[in-house]
Amino acid sequence: MIKQAIYHRPKNQYAYAYDKETLHIQLRTGRNDAEAVQLIHGDPYFWIEKSWQVQRAAMKKVAQDDLFDYWFIAIKPPFRRLRYGFELSNKQETIIYTEKGFYEKAPLDDTAYYFCFPFINEMDVFEAPEWVKDTIWYQIFPERFANGNKDNDPEGVLEWGTAKPSSSNFFGGDLKGVIDHLDYLCDLGISGIYFTPIFKAYSNHKYDTIDYMEIDPQFGDKKTFKRLVEECHKRGIKVMLDAVFNHSGYFFPPFQDVLKNQENSRYKNWFHIREFPIVTEPYPNYDTFAFAKSMPKLNTENHEVKEYLLEVGRYWVREFNIDGWRLDVANEIDHTFWREFRKAVKEVKKDVYILGEIWHDSMPWLHGDQFDAVMNYPFTTGALQYFAKDEINAEEFSHIIQKVLQSYPKNVNEVAFNLLGSHDTPRILTIANGEKQKIKLLLAFQLSFIGTPCIYYGDEIGLTGDQDPECRKCMEWIEDKQDRDLYNHVQKLISLRKNFRVFGNHGQFNFVEANKDTNHIVYTKENADHLFISAMNHSDQEIEITLPFELKDKTIRDLWTNEEFSVKESNLSITLEAYGFRFLLIQK
Amino acid sequence: MIKQAIYHRPKNQYAYAYDKETLHIQLRTGRNDAEAVQLIHGDPYFWIEKSWQVQRAAMKKVAQDDLFDYWFIAIKPPFRRLRYGFELSNKQETIIYTEKGFYEKAPLDDTAYYFCFPFINEMDVFEAPEWVKDTIWYQIFPERFANGNKDNDPEGVLEWGTAKPSSSNFFGGDLKGVIDHLDYLCDLGISGIYFTPIFKAYSNHKYDTIDYMEIDPQFGDKKTFKRLVEECHKRGIKVMLDAVFNHSGYFFPPFQDVLKNQENSRYKNWFHIREFPIVTEPYPNYDTFAFAKSMPKLNTENHEVKEYLLEVGRYWVREFNIDGWRLDVANEIDHTFWREFRKAVKEVKKDVYILGEIWHDSMPWLHGDQFDAVMNYPFTTGALQYFAKDEINAEEFSHIIQKVLQSYPKNVNEVAFNLLGSHDTPRILTIANGEKQKIKLLLAFQLSFIGTPCIYYGDEIGLTGDQDPECRKCMEWIEDKQDRDLYNHVQKLISLRKNFRVFGNHGQFNFVEANKDTNHIVYTKENADHLFISAMNHSDQEIEITLPFELKDKTIRDLWTNEEFSVKESNLSITLEAYGFRFLLIQK
Repeated sequence: MIKQAIYHRPKNQYAYAYDKETLHIQLRTGRNDAEAVQLIHGDPYFWIEKSWQVQRAAMKKVAQDDLFDYWFIAIKPPFRRLRYGFELSNKQETIIYTEKGFYEKAPLDDTAYYFCFPFINEMDVFEAPEWVKDTIWYQIFPERFANGNKDNDPEGVLEWGTAKPSSSNFFGGDLKGVIDHLDYLCDLGISGIYFTPIFKAYSNHKYDTIDYMEIDPQFGDKKTFKRLVEECHKRGIKVMLDAVFNHSGYFFPPFQDVLKNQENSRYKNWFHIREFPIVTEPYPNYDTFAFAKSMPKLNTENHEVKEYLLEVGRYWVREFNIDGWRLDVANEIDHTFWREFRKAVKEVKKDVYILGEIWHDSMPWLHGDQFDAVMNYPFTTGALQYFAKDEINAEEFSHIIQKVLQSYPKNVNEVAFNLLGSHDTPRILTIANGEKQKIKLLLAFQLSFIGTPCIYYGDEIGLTGDQDPECRKCMEWIEDKQDRDLYNHVQKLISLRKNFRVFGNHGQFNFVEANKDTNHIVYTKENADHLFISAMNHSDQEIEITLPFELKDKTIRDLWTNEEFSVKESNLSITLEAYGFRFLLIQK
Repeated sequence: MIKQAIYHRPKNQYAYAYDKETLHIQLRTGRNDAEAVQLIHGDPYFWIEKSWQVQRAAMKKVAQDDLFDYWFIAIKPPFRRLRYGFELSNKQETIIYTEKGFYEKAPLDDTAYYFCFPFINEMDVFEAPEWVKDTIWYQIFPERFANGNKDNDPEGVLEWGTAKPSSSNFFGGDLKGVIDHLDYLCDLGISGIYFTPIFKAYSNHKYDTIDYMEIDPQFGDKKTFKRLVEECHKRGIKVMLDAVFNHSGYFFPPFQDVLKNQENSRYKNWFHIREFPIVTEPYPNYDTFAFAKSMPKLNTENHEVKEYLLEVGRYWVREFNIDGWRLDVANEIDHTFWREFRKAVKEVKKDVYILGEIWHDSMPWLHGDQFDAVMNYPFTTGALQYFAKDEINAEEFSHIIQKVLQSYPKNVNEVAFNLLGSHDTPRILTIANGEKQKIKLLLAFQLSFIGTPCIYYGDEIGLTGDQDPECRKCMEWIEDKQDRDLYNHVQKLISLRKNFRVFGNHGQFNFVEANKDTNHIVYTKENADHLFISAMNHSDQEIEITLPFELKDKTIRDLWTNEEFSVKESNLSITLEAYGFRFLLIQK
């Protein structure tokens, strides 16, 4: 066996408490190397006659990527504590893998050889709000969604949709515009809105905050915002705001005070200023977001700054009853701050969702003490590469998705924020060179995957646009100009997600096939009641495939056509049109 | 190259902030596989003409075990943030390793491929008290160290050292006894005492606390303890107490109240009681330490319990100025509690040392938010297997030690609590079947290694004893019965550690040789001023070895004999007696 490929280390996705009594244990082995894996496990303190008493339980191979296989087991240790190792077998050999290395036989004279999950303390169990699992998000960039109130338009506002979006132009979108179109969102079926920043700021994107305690006057006022939240809640829609705590805007009064009073400013420790006097060219001599001089990095280790920002976090939950915080550039702020932030906002409202903007591997933020989820860009990248860009084939896609899933605990994956695009990326239809059938397939995958999907405003009616600022076009409200076919497609996918638990977030996801020659994939989601089978043909050729399941005499419901049929033979063959898919549901 | 052997994941020992401006980055590769590794790195936001601007820097191979090589680099990113990947080469090929997998050429169209260390926030940097690095610990089991006050002897006390220690007998050791022998400890050279529990408890080991706010009357009173701390501090000796927070004793009044009032007790949520009425047979129906009914597990998630224990933590620091807390069964308490504990005690005294009792891999507790160190039993196990038990050879020993070192960040290793034995393990001399020369070599290794060494009381004068309770014999105070030769050996080792920074904790440790045939090892410690070379012969044969260093014309000081000599030839050959060692110091 390839010993060097075998990996396990507890207290991350490899071993974690799924709930207050269940441990999930995962093992990585070389691809197609081990043929069976047994978990050797026991209570750390259970000894009889100087021998540690262990049990064995078969682990299941649940995933595979280009280099590795992944094995899984869920186990309920009676005393909430576990020592364990692994017995790996193939035709050639059987080996034991423990924290201390490899052995031929399981050593039972001491537990110190073994991996340890010392105790399931409920306090440490990762726990995201229950409602998130069933939420379909919709991301709104407020300046471009709808202009509901001409009175608060900024100076120099352009007529809706008549110009290319630039980094500095304004079209007058506002909160009232969102209220006016809540019925549209309800019709589409979404159940949560993620708003990019709405606090007083200078730019059109509002990521350069001037006042964290005020609604930007171009968007409305607190009264309007309160009404917006209430109207959303009436319709079963959750509201998530964007907290830009990594940096303030240039015109944030404390920063202006530092610019004015330099070393004598009482706010000089609110930022990371490397030397006085402050300069902005060629690079700012204070820390910033990226190299943006207009976005000075806040010193979140400073007590006053911390208290101020924590109060911001509490305030909008307490006073406006918002349901979530999306945290901008969350990875560049200290972990200590985020732990206190979680405590602060969850004390006001227990089931607030905390979503970090992190583009890379995010395990260190997802142990249950900081975020509930991160924006799942690794998912985004893989999905776009396969469905929209044709950069990778079905097999490579399945490897990426499995790798993403195997990077995190299951309870983390269930609330992952699975977006296809945002205000920071080109529009999906543009990425796919306008080939709508590819985007339909992409959306079908996103909405039948686990985690919580997010639609970027306008993607559902075919908005286009390259990298920002072009991906921030005005929403199209003239129905004739909307792609209603695409809209209906998204609406139908959302309705399936709502009506069939297994289609949504209540089934175990599994890749069954990923064929690099035909470029089709088959995956399933399964729970105690249902087996859901999805087959997708990402090619311009019609194909016929045989589903590798024993389905004889089963009644199958085609979720897309809503037809039911019975299978007469052992295996079911189905035809998939070019870029077609089939969604099949089998009652158990 | 063996791709499956290559591993890196940030925010643990593989990538961490060593200080507020320095990142340490480590890579694991297959043993003897890659011949060179370059770190490809750059600021995440530094782009020129759509291409990410990167630099390359050579990593150094710093360790090797049976399966893997380990590569290391320290780097100071100008803006405290870094994206990075690895270019690995050998004669056959060059490959690029990133978070997203392997590539033939470094992709520079996006930073998302790369590993990310988003920002060095000073708040998150692991930081142990500065004094710990230079501390030589001495562990005292108070009931068995010295009886200084007959007046506080427990009923039925036995005469000092006249009986075998049992789980229930008492010999009258107390705090006054420690005060009386501080000069002995000073003479030995120790600079920190770790006391096993001294709070009021039932047993002789006092791990079954009755009152966390009182000194056990058999040991003395608060006045005596205060004097003890003061006398220690006068002599430059730090004092560390044992916090048994995982469980209380059976006679802890809140538990007694639950036993008495059952479901109606106001303390019923202070414990984890699975059902009422409480039973203790065959197993207790409440959570305990191991299966010990006399040690009910405390519910550290309960607000009152938490406040009570945090105040215990603060109280002894605030009122008695203790310098450290050793945390019993630390791994079975929730991480949340330990984070609050750290905050609470460090607020009272910034440089309190927090040491967790964890026997297994402990990375999840050593991120800087919980403990400063853990009891380094993996070190203990390896050292005993090689030096005392002859279970493994020199090569296997070097693999274990390197694996231990590679499991943690460098700043963690520098304050690791490196013990050879404790009240929980057999005496080292007993393990080595009384072969003192082996123990001398073992101690020579321990005291010339990095981390902070701890001597278990009496090991320095040859106390023996098997697994507890036998390893808890009364300290021998009759000089004729002490092994003074062993004492002098330990004393001399401690003095070297104090007098030569490189010998202690201020040099980079490196294995140079570990020969499984002759069973000798050569290791070095190096800093800007000195190279220290240690050669140890763990065999009953005299051997002659040639040191693989260019030492021509160098003046070498033998630290053990204090002789200086010059080397005339390129390589230096030295003779090592059976179980002999040489400590050589070269000024740079």
